[in-house]
Amino acid sequence: MTDQTPAPEDQADGDKLLPPRELLDGIDAAIDTGDTAQLNTLLEPMHGADIADIIERLDPARRRAFLSLYSGEIDGEILSEIDEAIRDEVIGQLPAEVIAEAVREMDSDDVVDLVEDMAEPEREEILAALDATDRAAVQQSLAYPEYSAGRLMQSEVVTAPEHWTVGEAVAFLQSEDWLPEQFYHIVLVDPRRHPLGYVTLGRLLASAHDVLLRDITEDSFRTISAFAEEGDVAYVFNQYHLISAPVVDRDDRLVGIITIDDAMVVLDQEHEEDILLLAGVGEESSLTDSVMQTARQRVPWLATNILTAVAAASVIGLFESSIAQLVALAVLMPIVASMGGNAGTQTLAVAVRGLATKGLTKDNYLRVIRREAVVGLLNGAIFGLAIGSVTYMWFGSFGLGAVIGLAMIINLTIAALAGILVPLTLEKLGADPALASPTFVTTVTDVVGFFAFLGLATVMLL
Amino acid sequence: MTDQTPAPEDQADGDKLLPPRELLDGIDAAIDTGDTAQLNTLLEPMHGADIADIIERLDPARRRAFLSLYSGEIDGEILSEIDEAIRDEVIGQLPAEVIAEAVREMDSDDVVDLVEDMAEPEREEILAALDATDRAAVQQSLAYPEYSAGRLMQSEVVTAPEHWTVGEAVAFLQSEDWLPEQFYHIVLVDPRRHPLGYVTLGRLLASAHDVLLRDITEDSFRTISAFAEEGDVAYVFNQYHLISAPVVDRDDRLVGIITIDDAMVVLDQEHEEDILLLAGVGEESSLTDSVMQTARQRVPWLATNILTAVAAASVIGLFESSIAQLVALAVLMPIVASMGGNAGTQTLAVAVRGLATKGLTKDNYLRVIRREAVVGLLNGAIFGLAIGSVTYMWFGSFGLGAVIGLAMIINLTIAALAGILVPLTLEKLGADPALASPTFVTTVTDVVGFFAFLGLATVMLL
Repeated sequence: MTDQTPAPEDQADGDKLLPPRELLDGIDAAIDTGDTAQLNTLLEPMHGADIADIIERLDPARRRAFLSLYSGEIDGEILSEIDEAIRDEVIGQLPAEVIAEAVREMDSDDVVDLVEDMAEPEREEILAALDATDRAAVQQSLAYPEYSAGRLMQSEVVTAPEHWTVGEAVAFLQSEDWLPEQFYHIVLVDPRRHPLGYVTLGRLLASAHDVLLRDITEDSFRTISAFAEEGDVAYVFNQYHLISAPVVDRDDRLVGIITIDDAMVVLDQEHEEDILLLAGVGEESSLTDSVMQTARQRVPWLATNILTAVAAASVIGLFESSIAQLVALAVLMPIVASMGGNAGTQTLAVAVRGLATKGLTKDNYLRVIRREAVVGLLNGAIFGLAIGSVTYMWFGSFGLGAVIGLAMIINLTIAALAGILVPLTLEKLGADPALASPTFVTTVTDVVGFFAFLGLATVMLL
Repeated sequence: MTDQTPAPEDQADGDKLLPPRELLDGIDAAIDTGDTAQLNTLLEPMHGADIADIIERLDPARRRAFLSLYSGEIDGEILSEIDEAIRDEVIGQLPAEVIAEAVREMDSDDVVDLVEDMAEPEREEILAALDATDRAAVQQSLAYPEYSAGRLMQSEVVTAPEHWTVGEAVAFLQSEDWLPEQFYHIVLVDPRRHPLGYVTLGRLLASAHDVLLRDITEDSFRTISAFAEEGDVAYVFNQYHLISAPVVDRDDRLVGIITIDDAMVVLDQEHEEDILLLAGVGEESSLTDSVMQTARQRVPWLATNILTAVAAASVIGLFESSIAQLVALAVLMPIVASMGGNAGTQTLAVAVRGLATKGLTKDNYLRVIRREAVVGLLNGAIFGLAIGSVTYMWFGSFGLGAVIGLAMIINLTIAALAGILVPLTLEKLGADPALASPTFVTTVTDVVGFFAFLGLATVMLL
């Protein structure tokens, strides 16, 4: 038992969450002087997840030096926490026996996570370190599709027949020597391994020895298909406050179990994807990526955006002669476009979030679309009036004020519709609704904004 | 035990996650005909969280009808899952005895969540339903700041002295009749209730009766300060894969426990906030809000945006005579601004995410800022060359192509800097870094984009 007395850095208390500056400086110094003993002393009390973070944050040269000094201490916990972006690099620098040892310590789900993106030969090399049972478990998981519950589950499950008593179950647990590191439930199965319910360990401990397990199962019991998408798995854990859930194959037979900590990691990754996709950044991007990797990831959406920006510009091109007659149009037109982009993005965020949390469904599509359109109209009227008045004062033209006000109403209404219809359409097409939707929405609001404002001005003023 | 056999809708398998259309239609029909018996039959097999979702999705008139038909069945599980946006409305429509009964079933953390936003008289009314111990627990939690670990914890903790044996602990659990609904660990405490470590129930069950609890505690043990921010609590659970963690007061005495399912809910809410704040939507917004509520929530950032848009427009106003001489400038200028906005938003998303996951810290600020600036310069060069060539072909002017290319390089570099410096500044000021940062970033990229392009054109071409 280490860390028995809660040290200050163990408390979740604001700044104390991150390793203190002095510690990091000490680690840097130990790396630079090649002082393995000092490095071991500094890192000994730290959690593997924090050591992994430190490795991620080192610059590549120091990281190499660190790995050669510290390789003997890299264990399964550290390895499974290292960010995918640098994992290949780290593995490439570690001696084969260190990796083999680390992999043997891991639960099957962590091994799957480690090897699933590897090429066949590297993967085989790592799996060779496992004993036959563990290797079979990993290979079974890998047979399920990427991002499925089958990839997320661990195969180590504690099961019992439902006709057992509490006493029999307790005796069984005491005699077993292969129990998983962490488990919270016993899954009851029939002779063909169909899960029937589960008993929490707390309930088991609190019950008398002659009570039947089938009489103390939890009220609510859910199995997860091994083919279910991992995002749906995270949703189910969050929705029903599950701690662990049995995973079944197509014949409803138990093949593994997923625990909530893995579901929480998935939830976190899905949100990361949403934020990065919404901004048109590759979902794989990481703070440790190099300049070239980063620049390359950003190109696709910048390229899309330049095309849509040229399209919007060519709308303006249609009205060159109007602008030549009234330069104020060029001054004012970005205001209409910008407000449309802003309003559209607001609706978009609500829609993307609603789809992610399954709050926006077929039942309420129409109601939400209607609400957003009315909100767009209403805010269009408010800000149309505001900008119309400003324009009147600025340029002294009532007509110009009326035109910009009307264009604002049109653009904010269209913006609201685009903000919800773009993600719904992406979802219908089977794409992620967050997939750089702002680019599509602002294309609509730029084109409509310029067209409405310049078109109305041409018709009404010139 | 209900739901013993996994029914199809219990499986996390794509479309099966949501209640089927026919069921919802059946519920609508039962509400419209006032058929309580039918409503009970339809909802009986459903989880409280799903019933809460159905209540949220009903339109207000049907919701009132539903609540009066179904009020007898509203229990603690349903009530604690109902979205805050409509919770007051729902509580207002339920008979006092239904609420009292529901509240008595809840864990103390769910009661805290229910009453914390209520006015004093309503809160007192609800707390009056609790017995003295539970009420004291809720009041203890409410004494901690909003969004703190103290508000999130439940006070029901299973503890044991560290000198106990496994046999003594098991005997204690069997004799207790107040054990919490869900618990996964026994927290070891000294005589002054300082937590010393914890034992998982799995480990307890697998150990011999004469083993001391202190010899089977978990390696890694973390306490959480009751004053820690809930976002930090979620971070700690996610980082260290905790299942539950003891909460301590300023004197390091045990006051409660937080379980991972509550931390997962916080993580989910924090992400929702990030997405909504980034889009300039009030963080409290919900799909169930009315048109007026929604319109009002969106006004503040639209108002901010109109001011910044007018500022950008007045930059254009400085160059009216240049535009009058060369209308092509008006056509092209939004392209420079739009690309800047896009590139800035990309950097922003990475920065906001990095701050949220504590991947972006003082240690690597400078490295990330440098990386982003170089990426901005590089992509500025690529897209500057592209748009310069397009402009040359479109308008047949080499000079105009050179000007827009240069302006693009300048704006994409500034965009990258704004994308990271705006959220860092908000964080430094103690604000949420996601707080509508896109509005600030696009203000910078609009102003710089227009100024660089029109300014260069004026100097170089006219």
